[in-house]
Amino acid sequence: MTQGLLMVNTGNGKGKTTAALGMAMRAAGHGLRVCIIQFIKGSWHYGELDGIQAFNGLIDIHVMGKGFTWKSEDLTEDTRLAQEAWKFAAKTIDSGNYHTVILDEFTYLFHYNMLNMDDCLDRLKKRPPEQHVVITGRYAPQELIDSADLVTEMREIKHPLKTGIKAQKGIEF
Amino acid sequence: MTQGLLMVNTGNGKGKTTAALGMAMRAAGHGLRVCIIQFIKGSWHYGELDGIQAFNGLIDIHVMGKGFTWKSEDLTEDTRLAQEAWKFAAKTIDSGNYHTVILDEFTYLFHYNMLNMDDCLDRLKKRPPEQHVVITGRYAPQELIDSADLVTEMREIKHPLKTGIKAQKGIEF
Repeated sequence: MTQGLLMVNTGNGKGKTTAALGMAMRAAGHGLRVCIIQFIKGSWHYGELDGIQAFNGLIDIHVMGKGFTWKSEDLTEDTRLAQEAWKFAAKTIDSGNYHTVILDEFTYLFHYNMLNMDDCLDRLKKRPPEQHVVITGRYAPQELIDSADLVTEMREIKHPLKTGIKAQKGIEF
Repeated sequence: MTQGLLMVNTGNGKGKTTAALGMAMRAAGHGLRVCIIQFIKGSWHYGELDGIQAFNGLIDIHVMGKGFTWKSEDLTEDTRLAQEAWKFAAKTIDSGNYHTVILDEFTYLFHYNMLNMDDCLDRLKKRPPEQHVVITGRYAPQELIDSADLVTEMREIKHPLKTGIKAQKGIEF
């Protein structure tokens, strides 16, 4: 009997999304289906997307909200797009079509108060009992951590961009 | 101009190896070659290995030391195997044949004093200047952190095994 886990990768360090990607690869390697829902445009790049193609349709990816970057001046429109994106995500989760659903950079929707957290956590609690969900992003709120089964903080100890080395293909993107 | 980075994923949390795997996938997605050298048997499982097959030879993987698990009673033999494994890794790094070389669970060789750290860090410093190296494992020693360009600590905040949920296919392995 499997039990669906709610997993959170948070913190200011690298590896939150990358570890989720590794999990997608691991599940797909088992022949299991994965859906990645990307809430912020640009956090995943061509390298990853090409990588995903290698799995012959086991990994689906969706970029939500027209790839809104939270830099818009129009908060009302951003909030509407965020809620629409969450609706799509919740439907995907409830479909039970995937072994794992990854909500990439999802925490920002809470951080910017674009979603009602209680409603959202309640909906996640009522998902199909075998459904694994992975949420990534900085600033995971305490209520989400309390609801989750597994929480990892990626903590930055040292970062090369701070020592003047530029972002590089295959590493940063 | 690219500059080879020495990257370390350490800490007691999940995601150290999985993030390295995501990086391998990202690089291979760019058509770049990656070599994964696994220093401890069992930290990578069938899911990942099947996943790697999807990249048509861009990702090589080697299990070193006959997959020694550090549980041997024979420390002399373990140390010999560890040093042999490091020699192979150093040769692979110096070959310049790969965009990224991942030394998975490598920190344990320092933790168990199986390698001379100064010699090892010195050899890493003298590697081809464009060669990226990723080292994973708990207990990264301070000298390694000092030598590295990018260090991330995966810190466990909450883990389901502690709340009595068993390891599951596609998640833990």
